[in-house]
Amino acid sequence: MSGHILQNIEIKSVVPKKRQDLIKWHGWGYRDSEFRLRDRKMFFTSPRYLVSANATLDSFKKYIDSLFDVEMQHVLDLPFTEIRLKPVEYAKPTLVDDFIIGLDNLKIDYSLDGEDRLVRSHGQTINEIYDLRYGNFKRIPDLVLWPTSNDEVIKIVKLAHDNNVVLIVFGGGTSVSGAIQCPQDERRSIAILDTSQMNKLLWLNKENLTACFESGVVGQDLERVLNEHNYTLGHEPDSIEFSTLGGWVATRASGMKKNLYGNIEDIVLNVKVVTCTGVYDQKYSGAHKNVGPSLDNMIFGSEGTLGVITEVEVKIRPFPKVRRYGSIVFPNFSHGIQYLREIAKRRCQPASIRLIDNDQFQFGQALKTDEGALANFTNELKKFLLTRVKGYDWNEIAIATILFEGNQEDVDRQEKLIYSIAKQFYGISGGAKNGEKGYVLTYVIAYIRDFGLGAGLVAESFETSVPWTKCELLCDNVKLTIREECRKYKVKYFYTSTRVTQTYDAGACVYIYFGFQFSAPGYKIDNPIEIYHKIEEAARDIILASGGSISHHHGVGKLRKKWYKQSVSPVGINLYKAIKQELDPKNIFACDNFLMPEDKIDFVELTSKL
Amino acid sequence: MSGHILQNIEIKSVVPKKRQDLIKWHGWGYRDSEFRLRDRKMFFTSPRYLVSANATLDSFKKYIDSLFDVEMQHVLDLPFTEIRLKPVEYAKPTLVDDFIIGLDNLKIDYSLDGEDRLVRSHGQTINEIYDLRYGNFKRIPDLVLWPTSNDEVIKIVKLAHDNNVVLIVFGGGTSVSGAIQCPQDERRSIAILDTSQMNKLLWLNKENLTACFESGVVGQDLERVLNEHNYTLGHEPDSIEFSTLGGWVATRASGMKKNLYGNIEDIVLNVKVVTCTGVYDQKYSGAHKNVGPSLDNMIFGSEGTLGVITEVEVKIRPFPKVRRYGSIVFPNFSHGIQYLREIAKRRCQPASIRLIDNDQFQFGQALKTDEGALANFTNELKKFLLTRVKGYDWNEIAIATILFEGNQEDVDRQEKLIYSIAKQFYGISGGAKNGEKGYVLTYVIAYIRDFGLGAGLVAESFETSVPWTKCELLCDNVKLTIREECRKYKVKYFYTSTRVTQTYDAGACVYIYFGFQFSAPGYKIDNPIEIYHKIEEAARDIILASGGSISHHHGVGKLRKKWYKQSVSPVGINLYKAIKQELDPKNIFACDNFLMPEDKIDFVELTSKL
Repeated sequence: MSGHILQNIEIKSVVPKKRQDLIKWHGWGYRDSEFRLRDRKMFFTSPRYLVSANATLDSFKKYIDSLFDVEMQHVLDLPFTEIRLKPVEYAKPTLVDDFIIGLDNLKIDYSLDGEDRLVRSHGQTINEIYDLRYGNFKRIPDLVLWPTSNDEVIKIVKLAHDNNVVLIVFGGGTSVSGAIQCPQDERRSIAILDTSQMNKLLWLNKENLTACFESGVVGQDLERVLNEHNYTLGHEPDSIEFSTLGGWVATRASGMKKNLYGNIEDIVLNVKVVTCTGVYDQKYSGAHKNVGPSLDNMIFGSEGTLGVITEVEVKIRPFPKVRRYGSIVFPNFSHGIQYLREIAKRRCQPASIRLIDNDQFQFGQALKTDEGALANFTNELKKFLLTRVKGYDWNEIAIATILFEGNQEDVDRQEKLIYSIAKQFYGISGGAKNGEKGYVLTYVIAYIRDFGLGAGLVAESFETSVPWTKCELLCDNVKLTIREECRKYKVKYFYTSTRVTQTYDAGACVYIYFGFQFSAPGYKIDNPIEIYHKIEEAARDIILASGGSISHHHGVGKLRKKWYKQSVSPVGINLYKAIKQELDPKNIFACDNFLMPEDKIDFVELTSKL
Repeated sequence: MSGHILQNIEIKSVVPKKRQDLIKWHGWGYRDSEFRLRDRKMFFTSPRYLVSANATLDSFKKYIDSLFDVEMQHVLDLPFTEIRLKPVEYAKPTLVDDFIIGLDNLKIDYSLDGEDRLVRSHGQTINEIYDLRYGNFKRIPDLVLWPTSNDEVIKIVKLAHDNNVVLIVFGGGTSVSGAIQCPQDERRSIAILDTSQMNKLLWLNKENLTACFESGVVGQDLERVLNEHNYTLGHEPDSIEFSTLGGWVATRASGMKKNLYGNIEDIVLNVKVVTCTGVYDQKYSGAHKNVGPSLDNMIFGSEGTLGVITEVEVKIRPFPKVRRYGSIVFPNFSHGIQYLREIAKRRCQPASIRLIDNDQFQFGQALKTDEGALANFTNELKKFLLTRVKGYDWNEIAIATILFEGNQEDVDRQEKLIYSIAKQFYGISGGAKNGEKGYVLTYVIAYIRDFGLGAGLVAESFETSVPWTKCELLCDNVKLTIREECRKYKVKYFYTSTRVTQTYDAGACVYIYFGFQFSAPGYKIDNPIEIYHKIEEAARDIILASGGSISHHHGVGKLRKKWYKQSVSPVGINLYKAIKQELDPKNIFACDNFLMPEDKIDFVELTSKL
């Protein structure tokens, strides 16, 4: 069998080095894409998603208006692309002379420009976006570095370690855990290590079906290059347009098609990590290997705290011949969960299978335009259910959306089996269009959130993993808790819904969507983000009490570190600290995830011993 | 959905507490089972395996005789069950008074009996068995403890830590890495922590398809109990008759049916580990979870060096309705490997698929009895190949042995596909019997090894994992190296063969079998074990140079620690040391695996700081 077929392929990224030219600096996604409200009409500005460009979204507006019992309007400021709130003056960067001289000597590309620093100072949580939009700028990094290879990263890490400069690794900037925020109390110079210029395909081996990329490769670029050679990685997190391979490893990411391709830890064979004590690089074997404790697994989910992931070897798959959508309508959410559990028990999951509750179904159905592929679908489905299927309540039904991938024969068999099992749970086919719509909604949901912020609505989603037996109860408990909390904080109008997005042998991943109105004529909540977080915190407490985990794939970061200790046990936290101290004795990877103040390592004392 | 259906089930183990009543103290397996040679006839003493009891194995004897060009006879001593070489006097145990008083106070069951200590002083490597048989007893443990629960283990670990007593955890005693041997230079008191009395099924959850066992449960006991309730774990390492769940986790075990059920790390959801710093116990979620670096993975493959695994939560599966064997004959090994690679590429592996080379095929075929199920098979196959399939050389063919498991429909489909793909590689069905024989051979091969030792033959197997592209080359390289090494050490007659036992997306597991004659009339090699190890060492060097790993699932232990550092990189070794120091600051789990003398942690200095 032969060896490599491709080597050292440069990839032209969709995302430019000056990322703010393409990507919003104060919200999710492409600058050209946003929801807007003008003359009481709502519309979307680009044709990038299945929502037709400039078609009005009357149903959706009507739905939101009725949900919050008031006509939505821009109550705060201009639409996104018209905002120009970027601070004219940025904080003067804190710099270490020897570090800068070192960078110059090494010919490392860097920038001190305020805008370059600002756009890499945050991820995509609602509070980061809110702070950006309303000018509550906090500590931003002092400079941005663009290494172009593993070797340059080695030099940068040594230089930073020698000069006690903090490095925060920045990939796609799509974190939703606060993981890449600068710690507010950090007084040392903070350099962003932007991996975007390390995005080569180093090699691809056709026989082993393996490839090695530099860590900064953006998801959509990686897929495009593989697709050109008739391969796929199959890893499709909702952030795939912007997030990077290195980021996926650092956050132990999950993709929507994990049933077919696995989560990132199932896909990755080897990682190269530059630490302060050297390069960690396990010998590659391509199969199960037994060389003591699995140290590789220290890197998955390490969220930038242990070193810089520079190169990643992955398994690739032949590009699937068939891709087909589907959907199943269940009389209620409970039937749907039982169905998903049965599918998982029989291990016959298609590439993706998700279940949305009725609240989310209504939301999705409202999001239709007057033209385009999905325009008339709702009415057709409604007519079908009302005329042909008696006893299904439009306000109770839940929908499973399905994606099949594979060769013709496998997809046909899978499809047949999936629909046949559905009958036992009173599930009937809702057609392919509804399925496809569900997946497209995934990509626009973050745009909707940002639109809401301008329209006086704060909304966000969060996720967990939970054993099957506790899945439905957890969903109910969270909704009840949110209701109680809203009452407590005098939140009048709110929205909550749930979705089961991943199924496993013994449990599932559940998403919770929650939003409320904080500003409308005659109605105002002064501190919406603070209230939002208090409610989300109560929701997370009830999630854990109901048998759910701290996170399924979003990670811990700063947002969820409050619950880290109870999740890994005190022994686990000490184990993490021992690893951290070994690999990063001066804490230059000081993004400060995982540990609460009371568990912090005293690096100053440690450093003095070095 | 409901919760647990079974709770706190006591399991009566096949293996008695006084294990030497059932199990050989000086070789592999059941005392009633061994190969013997009497009046120039070879036979097997029990009907436990498909080799019929007391039927003569004339073909096998003839095969071995011709292989080594001399008539095999017992040249050294009596057959196994007739050996009574156990030392009459055992070394007086080194005891710590306060530890013994503590055990008495805690009412922990223990023994100072020499025989109890001896039978738990070793695993199953050829040198351990050789030393046992020829009386080269080394350091044996000083006492044996039998805790009955996690709580008792917590107390024992605290007591041992306080009194600086070494704990070596003993499960099934089937290790083939030297992992449980006492370090020869250990002067502290060494207590064996025998987990055999911790073997309860703590609970079983029908809805989640999960169960929790205490770690000491023996493989065959665990399967029997699950089977009674119509479930299976599906984890079947070759040692399943004796090895334990805790041992599987500690060595990151692989089972023959991993294609269907996964390797142990795919099966286990949660582990409870008692360390010197507390109990490590991650919160269970039943699905992918994202709580920082995966600390659980520090436990898999930790080989007793970090703590005591006490409870293990596993996924269980419905007992399969259909179990079917199969085999495929290929014109040569190379075609067989290419076929396995194609099957793995298409991810259509049945529960198990293995490939044996021609040397191993001849070996297996010779192992027939004059009566019993497999008696006349060889001749039939031979006739078929010679008469119907032209161009297949009996001395070149390679055989894939296959095990299908699942429901009728899936097995039928899988079988059809498997045989249809085989055609592309000139593979033709060799029938089910040949397949079944291949799997039975797995269980008797260790008995053959022990028989050989009495007949002047030293033999052993070792394994690796390797990327597909390097699989065949690695097999060739190892065989060439063994030949050269045999010449170097003046080994006249030797045998070597290879088998591919596991297939993965990007690589495979390869077993190498190697044996040579060290004693025959007029021929003697004085230090056979030493020579054997020198040759195996050279073989491992060429394995690594050929892209193979240090081990696929046997582990590192003491036997392979020479190659540990190069496998995990210097950063990796320091990471392991940091973890070890954190969890076991006095090194009471001092079985001394992984680290070479030059990398040892100075625990004396550390302890003085405590």
